Amino acid sequence: LKAEKLAYLYSPHFPYFVHVNKKGSVRLLRGTFYFWKNKISKSDLMFFTGDSQAQTIEGQYEISDLVLDFAKKHNVKLIVTLGGYRMEAKDKPNVIAAATNSELLNKALEAKAMLSPLESPIVGTAGLILGLSRFKKVSAICLLGETRGYLPDPRAAKSVLEVLRTILNLDVDLAGLEEEIAKAEKIVTRLQKIEEKRILQTEEMRKEEDKKVSYIS
Amino acid sequence: LKAEKLAYLYSPHFPYFVHVNKKGSVRLLRGTFYFWKNKISKSDLMFFTGDSQAQTIEGQYEISDLVLDFAKKHNVKLIVTLGGYRMEAKDKPNVIAAATNSELLNKALEAKAMLSPLESPIVGTAGLILGLSRFKKVSAICLLGETRGYLPDPRAAKSVLEVLRTILNLDVDLAGLEEEIAKAEKIVTRLQKIEEKRILQTEEMRKEEDKKVSYIS
Amino acid sequence: LKAEKLAYLYSPHFPYFVHVNKKGSVRLLRGTFYFWKNKISKSDLMFFTGDSQAQTIEGQYEISDLVLDFAKKHNVKLIVTLGGYRMEAKDKPNVIAAATNSELLNKALEAKAMLSPLESPIVGTAGLILGLSRFKKVSAICLLGETRGYLPDPRAAKSVLEVLRTILNLDVDLAGLEEEIAKAEKIVTRLQKIEEKRILQTEEMRKEEDKKVSYIS
Amino acid sequence: LKAEKLAYLYSPHFPYFVHVNKKGSVRLLRGTFYFWKNKISKSDLMFFTGDSQAQTIEGQYEISDLVLDFAKKHNVKLIVTLGGYRMEAKDKPNVIAAATNSELLNKALEAKAMLSPLESPIVGTAGLILGLSRFKKVSAICLLGETRGYLPDPRAAKSVLEVLRTILNLDVDLAGLEEEIAKAEKIVTRLQKIEEKRILQTEEMRKEEDKKVSYIS
Repeated sequence: LKAEKLAYLYSPHFPYFVHVNKKGSVRLLRGTFYFWKNKISKSDLMFFTGDSQAQTIEGQYEISDLVLDFAKKHNVKLIVTLGGYRMEAKDKPNVIAAATNSELLNKALEAKAMLSPLESPIVGTAGLILGLSRFKKVSAICLLGETRGYLPDPRAAKSVLEVLRTILNLDVDLAGLEEEIAKAEKIVTRLQKIEEKRILQTEEMRKEEDKKVSYIS
Repeated sequence: LKAEKLAYLYSPHFPYFVHVNKKGSVRLLRGTFYFWKNKISKSDLMFFTGDSQAQTIEGQYEISDLVLDFAKKHNVKLIVTLGGYRMEAKDKPNVIAAATNSELLNKALEAKAMLSPLESPIVGTAGLILGLSRFKKVSAICLLGETRGYLPDPRAAKSVLEVLRTILNLDVDLAGLEEEIAKAEKIVTRLQKIEEKRILQTEEMRKEEDKKVSYIS
Repeated sequence: LKAEKLAYLYSPHFPYFVHVNKKGSVRLLRGTFYFWKNKISKSDLMFFTGDSQAQTIEGQYEISDLVLDFAKKHNVKLIVTLGGYRMEAKDKPNVIAAATNSELLNKALEAKAMLSPLESPIVGTAGLILGLSRFKKVSAICLLGETRGYLPDPRAAKSVLEVLRTILNLDVDLAGLEEEIAKAEKIVTRLQKIEEKRILQTEEMRKEEDKKVSYIS
Repeated sequence: LKAEKLAYLYSPHFPYFVHVNKKGSVRLLRGTFYFWKNKISKSDLMFFTGDSQAQTIEGQYEISDLVLDFAKKHNVKLIVTLGGYRMEAKDKPNVIAAATNSELLNKALEAKAMLSPLESPIVGTAGLILGLSRFKKVSAICLLGETRGYLPDPRAAKSVLEVLRTILNLDVDLAGLEEEIAKAEKIVTRLQKIEEKRILQTEEMRKEEDKKVSYIS
């Protein structure tokens, strides 16, 4: 969407190291707010992304609170937090939705999101923002995509964004993600091959060792 | 008793996740105060239950202090904290009592509670509230039921409530608990059968492996 | 010495549980200040003992600071912290001394205390009080007795108190400790016998298992 | 350079023990600022060394912030943080540089420092000072020498100081380090021999055990 950077959030609750980029430049871990002016309808968008979760319990609450305050100050009416939940998606990854009010939740369900079948908790900032939003009188919804969890997962991202697009009534082109999905599939396939090879080698080694053992006796 | 909700206690010392219910609604972890108007005598009751213990030492002290302050503000004269201690109860689970003054303690002992035979400490909010109550000039007693500890234990609950009923001179019907006890017994019996089966299987597997070993040599 | 209780130190940095005594009475973990009026010379004594070390780094500094402030307020001129260091004492346990000034340290060395041979750090309140005392302009010395560390050790206590008695020029009768030493020796001897028995049993079991193994092959 | 001590930095975020020296004297863990008056040019130098890293995340940020504030107050224009990164240097240890502005970084690269090939983070005070310096409007650069990491490494120190010397245009004699390097080489060689011996012994023991095993069957 080509949103503009609006503000950074720095905190001593983020990990105590700095990032170094390829050019040797250094920066603290931080959260970033972006702003996107909607030229068609009146719904502008603000984004928040972070390098890391807060590292202490109190820090988790403090950062979620700061993000909410900033949103409130900029007149945000609806907050959407995005995340993933660990599950091997069979086909198209599902999206689980939870929200602060049922009207909002229904919009997500209509957009093919599901209720959490297991009443599992939502951990971290994505969950706490929802929990704290009622005290700030802001509506909030959380969308979680099914993902393996150990790699960036554009397929899960696509599922989540499709729901989001419908809820916000936005015309976003997700074609760029298809390319990412193809790339990610290749990486996963390659990793699986490496893993298979590793298992085979381990078996070979065990057979060799078994031979050794029989040789001894 | 059908008590009414009076107030919630939220804190950044509770775990940093939110609960999601079956309807997709979200809430922070919290403590809840209930109030019960006594229509017969003058002793009204206030209850406090929590989703979780505070996650840091300082949080433990802070939450216990907040609960005491709230009770004090609402003119509470006697605080009873309830809990469990891990021990396999042979027959009817015992109840151990500790209190801030001996008069109060004696009431519990007359109601068939026991003194702690081992001078063991009381950990967490149930204990700290007692320890801190002397600074607020409120009487407090702690009742701990014998329990296996890894499952809700309605038999322990019943023992504790019987003592509590006598101390507070309340006419509470505990018949509903009998049903819970029957249910819980079934669950425990089922778990024990699963455990026995698991042990048998493990033994079978070991025997199989022993055979393998003899085969190799 | 029959010193009188002067004050308690409570802190949310102590562990979050309460002690229960034989009578079912409850109290928070705390530190206790005692005061002893010297009827012969002008040197009164103040004592501080604690149930537990502070549980966080910041708590360690805060408690040491509070103890120092209290001492300073009561006009204390010399602080002695006592402790142990883990080493199997061969004969009479040695006492290691460290101090904020050399004059004070020399007094301890004349009383047969030793310098630390290994420049090892002094961990916890006993050390931090010394480290912080220079900022409060109070002299301080730390005496550490050689001890096995896992049991109350009256022999180490006696060594430490003999040095302390000389430094403070006090006439304290340590005969009561002899009885304690005799008791402790008995406990240690009993524990050693249990340990020897356990080792023997373990060996027996291993032999049995060895037989099994040879039987299988 | 024979710099003078300027100030100490004490903090409850440092570990909770005190150092004892050979003379039985005690001191808290701390950071030390030194000052060196440049008699030739106008660039005076200030140094900061610490006994330990801060022990909590918030402490890490606080200490880095305090060091920066102190530097700012004393009109420091350029901050250089030094450190190591774990890698077995083949020949002469490399030096990796990262900086808050490219002009400064280029000076380091001209002095034969390298960019980080892996965009790895810089952990701890050396990194955070760089990350926080932009908010204080001070330039900062970090130089990290290749080192094995488990021993003082004068070869890595020499590499780092050569780069530093060029950046600061200082005439420092590093000949004293050559002696240190020779000493350190001997220690490493001795450790390697001990390690080789240990491996040999382990092998011997395994062979012995193999014999035992064959004997049993």
